[in-house]
Amino acid sequence: MSQREFPSGIRSLDAVFRPRSIAVVGASDDPTRINGRPIAFARRFGYEGAIYPINPSRQTVQGLRAYPSLRDAPDGIDCAIIALPAALVIDALHQCAGKGIRAVVLFTSGFAELGEAGQRKQEEITRIARAHGIRLLGPNVIGCFCLSRKTYVTFLSDVDGALPAGKPRIGLVSQSGGYGAHIYKLALQRGLAVDQVVTTGNEADIELGEVMEWMAESPDVDIIVGYIEGIRSKASFIRGLEAAHRKRKPVVLMKVGATQAGAAAAASHTAALAGADAVYDALLREYGAYRARSNEEVLDVVYALSAGKPLRKRKLGVVTISGGAGVQIADFASEAGLDLPMPSEATQRALREIAPFGSPANPVDVTAQISNDPEIFTATLDRLLDAGYDSLLMWLGPAVTNARAGAPIRATIERIAATRPDVLQTINLIGGAEVTSVYEAAGCLLFEEPRRAVQALAALRYFERVFSRPLPVRPDVSQMTLLAPDTTYNEVDAKRVLAGAGVALLDERLVHTPAQAAEAAREIGRPVAVKVVSADIQHKSDVGGVALSLASPEEAAQAVRRMAGEIPRKAPTARIDGYLVSPMLNDGVECIVGVHADPLFGPVVMFGLGGVMVEVMQDVAFALAPLDEAGALELVRRVKGHRLLTGFRGRPPADLPALARAIASISRLAARNADRLQALEVNPLCVLPEGQGVVALDAVVQTGAPGLPIAHPPAKQD
Amino acid sequence: MSQREFPSGIRSLDAVFRPRSIAVVGASDDPTRINGRPIAFARRFGYEGAIYPINPSRQTVQGLRAYPSLRDAPDGIDCAIIALPAALVIDALHQCAGKGIRAVVLFTSGFAELGEAGQRKQEEITRIARAHGIRLLGPNVIGCFCLSRKTYVTFLSDVDGALPAGKPRIGLVSQSGGYGAHIYKLALQRGLAVDQVVTTGNEADIELGEVMEWMAESPDVDIIVGYIEGIRSKASFIRGLEAAHRKRKPVVLMKVGATQAGAAAAASHTAALAGADAVYDALLREYGAYRARSNEEVLDVVYALSAGKPLRKRKLGVVTISGGAGVQIADFASEAGLDLPMPSEATQRALREIAPFGSPANPVDVTAQISNDPEIFTATLDRLLDAGYDSLLMWLGPAVTNARAGAPIRATIERIAATRPDVLQTINLIGGAEVTSVYEAAGCLLFEEPRRAVQALAALRYFERVFSRPLPVRPDVSQMTLLAPDTTYNEVDAKRVLAGAGVALLDERLVHTPAQAAEAAREIGRPVAVKVVSADIQHKSDVGGVALSLASPEEAAQAVRRMAGEIPRKAPTARIDGYLVSPMLNDGVECIVGVHADPLFGPVVMFGLGGVMVEVMQDVAFALAPLDEAGALELVRRVKGHRLLTGFRGRPPADLPALARAIASISRLAARNADRLQALEVNPLCVLPEGQGVVALDAVVQTGAPGLPIAHPPAKQD
Repeated sequence: MSQREFPSGIRSLDAVFRPRSIAVVGASDDPTRINGRPIAFARRFGYEGAIYPINPSRQTVQGLRAYPSLRDAPDGIDCAIIALPAALVIDALHQCAGKGIRAVVLFTSGFAELGEAGQRKQEEITRIARAHGIRLLGPNVIGCFCLSRKTYVTFLSDVDGALPAGKPRIGLVSQSGGYGAHIYKLALQRGLAVDQVVTTGNEADIELGEVMEWMAESPDVDIIVGYIEGIRSKASFIRGLEAAHRKRKPVVLMKVGATQAGAAAAASHTAALAGADAVYDALLREYGAYRARSNEEVLDVVYALSAGKPLRKRKLGVVTISGGAGVQIADFASEAGLDLPMPSEATQRALREIAPFGSPANPVDVTAQISNDPEIFTATLDRLLDAGYDSLLMWLGPAVTNARAGAPIRATIERIAATRPDVLQTINLIGGAEVTSVYEAAGCLLFEEPRRAVQALAALRYFERVFSRPLPVRPDVSQMTLLAPDTTYNEVDAKRVLAGAGVALLDERLVHTPAQAAEAAREIGRPVAVKVVSADIQHKSDVGGVALSLASPEEAAQAVRRMAGEIPRKAPTARIDGYLVSPMLNDGVECIVGVHADPLFGPVVMFGLGGVMVEVMQDVAFALAPLDEAGALELVRRVKGHRLLTGFRGRPPADLPALARAIASISRLAARNADRLQALEVNPLCVLPEGQGVVALDAVVQTGAPGLPIAHPPAKQD
Repeated sequence: MSQREFPSGIRSLDAVFRPRSIAVVGASDDPTRINGRPIAFARRFGYEGAIYPINPSRQTVQGLRAYPSLRDAPDGIDCAIIALPAALVIDALHQCAGKGIRAVVLFTSGFAELGEAGQRKQEEITRIARAHGIRLLGPNVIGCFCLSRKTYVTFLSDVDGALPAGKPRIGLVSQSGGYGAHIYKLALQRGLAVDQVVTTGNEADIELGEVMEWMAESPDVDIIVGYIEGIRSKASFIRGLEAAHRKRKPVVLMKVGATQAGAAAAASHTAALAGADAVYDALLREYGAYRARSNEEVLDVVYALSAGKPLRKRKLGVVTISGGAGVQIADFASEAGLDLPMPSEATQRALREIAPFGSPANPVDVTAQISNDPEIFTATLDRLLDAGYDSLLMWLGPAVTNARAGAPIRATIERIAATRPDVLQTINLIGGAEVTSVYEAAGCLLFEEPRRAVQALAALRYFERVFSRPLPVRPDVSQMTLLAPDTTYNEVDAKRVLAGAGVALLDERLVHTPAQAAEAAREIGRPVAVKVVSADIQHKSDVGGVALSLASPEEAAQAVRRMAGEIPRKAPTARIDGYLVSPMLNDGVECIVGVHADPLFGPVVMFGLGGVMVEVMQDVAFALAPLDEAGALELVRRVKGHRLLTGFRGRPPADLPALARAIASISRLAARNADRLQALEVNPLCVLPEGQGVVALDAVVQTGAPGLPIAHPPAKQD
């Protein structure tokens, strides 16, 4: 079978996730052993394809005919499971290749996770797989399975066969087998419909992003849940996120290594690049994935999505039987940015009539009086529905089991569920399974902790926004200048590069002598700054290379004279390209626009307000390059200090459109040079009052050897 | 019975919480009704005191002899429960007074929570109670109960009679009945030993702080849990916190109304003052209470405390069977400020030998290999114990139910529990009650979600620190100057007040004419600023009343001339007291020290770095006045920008001791004037380089009519 006949692109993964036949290399007759389990599952759950146990020492394995080697098995096998010791893997892979097998799931561990020698072994198996067009899951995986397709290519000990009916189906992809198994088990406990689980382990070939893309295209998956330790390829990850957005499938991700301590632990555990966490944050926000911060949050959000209510803007009303609970929920909602619209005056009057001792604001407090008069609860809910509230968060605590109020509460909620299926009912209650099952059957979301209910509703709101806007379109960068490689630009040359990208500069002059400096100052006609120009001097002030507020031509000349004497002593190896005479600028707000080359994501733009705001307050925001002007403006708005730009304390508002244009230009320049740019920083970029533009006051540009664009890793053979 | 015989102070609450006899006014024969329940509970759980049902229309109530009125009942009754309609309450209270009853628990609602008219009714009952020395719990409460004393002065429907044995006992005090009931039920579900529950409702008399103090003194309570909507008296609240600290009883509080939205909901719900949330934060931190942010967090922390392990510094080691879980836990620990000390090189070598595929750092990853070889787990734990780790957080996920590893894991953990009772074992696992009960019996803390385990361990660390330091001692303020009441000070007078408190000023001169200004500038001998002096002008710049960097005496004179012409036009009603000529100061870091009069907590000191840091970044910290210098320094360290004071980017370190002295002086001045101070702000307070002190560049002082010190509310009659 030749390579050309293989399906290409994401369809090549069908052989792993929907194999029509599976060989188990080293199959065990013991259904509890790792290499016995896939066969046991296939038989127990009724896998409809063919299973070929490979075992040289047995005639049958678990009642199936066994083959002494792959060579002896029938042709046309889709997928082979390899669970052999690491030393035997390469030979087995060659046998798979010889047999024309399309996919291998490699349970075996002992590769890149063990360091350099393991990494080399892993690269070898990647080479073999790619040379023969084999898609490989692993090594170091517990495999994958799909309930609705009855496909169990896994040794996970407690997989299930039954899928809860009528719920959105979840596809779970995890780089860690342990985490995948854990979250799967927790999801089952929560009654979630996990149809498909894939662990990608060391990702010698198949990466998490590809699995996400495959799930986005799969009719079996409605919600994608992912666990990330480190992404290997930006391109396939973004393709996965884009596919999910295109198909309107929510993506809920847990990405560990958020702190330095975590990243250190991640590095010792996987072969993955950790990636700067803030960059992950920026990317996930941009592509509309939800980043959860704990397993519980993953499950809460997926649980809320599993209610299957359309993701659209809702009017949220909160009803409590305890004022204190209402205060808590208002706190949580405020923190989560979840709006609680006030009822109109008329509605408030009506609510006050219904519950005179309560509170008619939102949260609406019906008080524990409902134990005496459950009609208060019913009438309040109906009034809120009339007033257009189509999402109700009810704090009922133990009231649902109250002797008097329990039954009427239940009847009201069930009636709303039946007559107003568009309404999302979320309930905080305490009660055993006999209570919760009733409310869950009515399609309600149940939470014990109000904070978690609010967080889950905020996640639904997040997705509603995500799916109401298009994904970012990266602006074209082909017209931008390609920078010379391996160059550290001096300030003048760096600014020339910026000017070429459309960023304005001051009316500055490069001079070489004190006399020229005086002449330049005279031409400029107001106080000037003089700075040494040298690509070799990083911190000009440290060597006395900056003189500010020089009021006269004589002072400018004197500054150059001093620098010419002093700097060669302080920085004897620095080549001095001259001195820059610039008008002093006392206006505007100083900002920093920087670009660094993330090893995984390529050029990443950072924006911050100058000085203390960046260095002490770490008030900065990141985005992937390139950005268009809207994206640049959003970046600016994400720093807390952006108020300084919008007319703070009587200052004139700054020229935000010009700032956005400048950031976008810088980001495009960086993206064009993604294969060589090491650093680009405009600091300060001075933003003048509205209509007056921005000016780059200083700039650093540094390039390295051009390589393969880091943002576009070598294409897979698929 | 006369008032003098009553116990005073906190012992007066014994009549409520440990009554030797209870009258139920309006007692019902129906054990399910509100005024039937206390009698039913007393009988069911075996209350050892006397119960006197008061009911004019029955001979017996629930089998007990009933009395037609309180007058007819025996003398010497400790406590009366009143559950009558609001209109009958005052008469009943008078009857209690006539009978010499010491305590009343008032279930009835319809008082301050209903607004002004209700507030007046409530004040009336407070007056009656205080006049007759009756301690009153309520109105609007579900009452209180104590399991170990078999005392049930409550109508809460599902109280319990059994207390889990051998655990620290919890006293729960809540301003909200609904919340109290809710958290009580959740605590029971978690198996916590809640011995005493008190709800304080509208707090017409007994306040939450007093209950905390009573619980601190009670031998029945080891851990105090409180739910706060708004504190009424700072003094009793602080007495409660101090008593708990003195008795080394951890206090875990939930305070709602943290956000503006929440505070608005709180205001509509209770008659309480919300208090500025940041002030609560400051106060709780200072007095060592733990502020939880959700019910779940309350319970998690109390659950961790319930393990009953000594609160002392522990060496925390994390062991996982999945590297990903380790990364998560490292992230969570880093966020929570929980240190994970690295094992020594020798220990790491030993761990690597035990688990070659794992990671020997902390978190230690033993990998899923333990399913094949559980001895890896056992040996790893023993090695960590040898290395001094006496707190172990183990992420075991589903491994505890693993066919091979489950039993050895359990045996190891049980052995450690038996042989090393000093060690705190915390486990993340998934499993049913049959699994969890085994590990809980071994004294382990169990969590499903690692984030919550880490948070709970961080809370234990918090308490360990709390109990290892003394509570703050408020410095004496009696020597500080008493300010004139009802005065808005002009800048010169305000600065004089500061100078009197020991805060340094510039060498400034108050002048009245241009000629005097020129003379002053000449004397000063360097560039000066000129500012108008007027108590009537809040924002001097707005009326042209500030001129900076005046280089010559002539410019100073000219500035005064201009102001004298311009300001009377712009601020025609302002009385101008002259002009202040000050040397320009171009050195130092500008800060703000402000004091505002919190209606509940009295003078509260705010510290921030000047300008943008305060106004845009809201980077400020609060503390109650007065502070000593150590407290002032801690306040400074709590702002994120304090790095600017410690030698940021080559600047000289600022004079922190002088700053601390100045803040402490200002706080003492404010505390001395707590009954009249409305506002005090030094802005900027310029902090000079080390050894050079601080200088107040501008100041505002404003006083009102002297009243009762708001920080010391009228003493209770007790």
